[in-house]
Amino acid sequence: MKLYDYWRSSAAYRVRIALNLKGISYEHISVHLVKEGGQQHSADYKALNPQSLLPSLETDAGDIITQSLAILEYLDETEPTPALLPVSALDRSRVRSLAGMIACDIHPVNNLRVLQYLKNTLKVEDDAKSEWYRHWIYKTFDALETRLENEASTGNFCHGDTPTLADICLIPQVYNAHRFKCKMDAYPNINRINDACLKLDAFQKAIPENQPDAV
Amino acid sequence: MKLYDYWRSSAAYRVRIALNLKGISYEHISVHLVKEGGQQHSADYKALNPQSLLPSLETDAGDIITQSLAILEYLDETEPTPALLPVSALDRSRVRSLAGMIACDIHPVNNLRVLQYLKNTLKVEDDAKSEWYRHWIYKTFDALETRLENEASTGNFCHGDTPTLADICLIPQVYNAHRFKCKMDAYPNINRINDACLKLDAFQKAIPENQPDAV
Repeated sequence: MKLYDYWRSSAAYRVRIALNLKGISYEHISVHLVKEGGQQHSADYKALNPQSLLPSLETDAGDIITQSLAILEYLDETEPTPALLPVSALDRSRVRSLAGMIACDIHPVNNLRVLQYLKNTLKVEDDAKSEWYRHWIYKTFDALETRLENEASTGNFCHGDTPTLADICLIPQVYNAHRFKCKMDAYPNINRINDACLKLDAFQKAIPENQPDAV
Repeated sequence: MKLYDYWRSSAAYRVRIALNLKGISYEHISVHLVKEGGQQHSADYKALNPQSLLPSLETDAGDIITQSLAILEYLDETEPTPALLPVSALDRSRVRSLAGMIACDIHPVNNLRVLQYLKNTLKVEDDAKSEWYRHWIYKTFDALETRLENEASTGNFCHGDTPTLADICLIPQVYNAHRFKCKMDAYPNINRINDACLKLDAFQKAIPENQPDAV
């Protein structure tokens, strides 16, 4: 498989973790989000992913899959072990709900193109832009911490004692939270789960600084 | 089942369509997003959904499921007929990818709380706020139209000839596009699919104006 990837892309980071957990080897193809005005906007990449967003996965058969959540579900359906979703429909809905909190309600609002629009079109100053970034993380992390604290299915990881889609979405977002200097004291469960995940090789190998295009 | 719902909530609209397609009757519980400073912020609703977002689904067993994509997948797993996802993993990934384009890359960026932040915190004028709203719709609709035009699996609906998760996400977004006066001429496939869906009772019953709390 080939992963169109960028070290700091949070959505690509998710897919790296999943590929590593499944033990699937892949070719990393760097699409630099800043250089040359953003290589994701090149005609070649746009032909492959009309949204000009990362990541894209190319299967061994040459099919292209876009949107990280769709890629994660595909990997779980085609390489079922270890499972990234629990067995019962209700448990699966919990994991997908936790994942969705991050993948829908934080990440797209803080994505590079949104930050660029704030700066270039709305002339938002850097400080206010960073406040925006932290605001959406806090909003969702507050709710996520409440759920992790109160819901019985929380274990060593977001759901039970093995990593799921929820952890795969959470850990890249915690990385972003640190990068943008969020205060993390109010999130003991999130911090604990982040620590537990980062002890695993699959997560460790996927962190931005360990990618070939990291600077 | 009980659906915590609001007529103009785009994410709740998705779930209404799915419930109707599956033939599942449900109790509509209105959570007014504007009245009383937003009923979603009430302590009662927050206890049920710590994100203070719509929708939430309460199952007959009393379990709460949040995040619309998680709810849609749950409904498809527990009431498999008619299926909202195709059979093969690759086809499923295409449908989830199309759905994700809307559910991740348009809707959260244009959500009420984001618009309120633009207005109240960043002091963005109404015109610029409407431009923002349309900008993110155009960005993704451009890419979506390209995919629908070029990909062989597009049929009478986004994927083949029966409605899937992709249509369920698309149609509420087209409703929003009309509401915010987007120019839709460049999107013949999107328009055609919107028309096809709205001919079906399940979609018709779910439209905002047909809800008990519509004004």
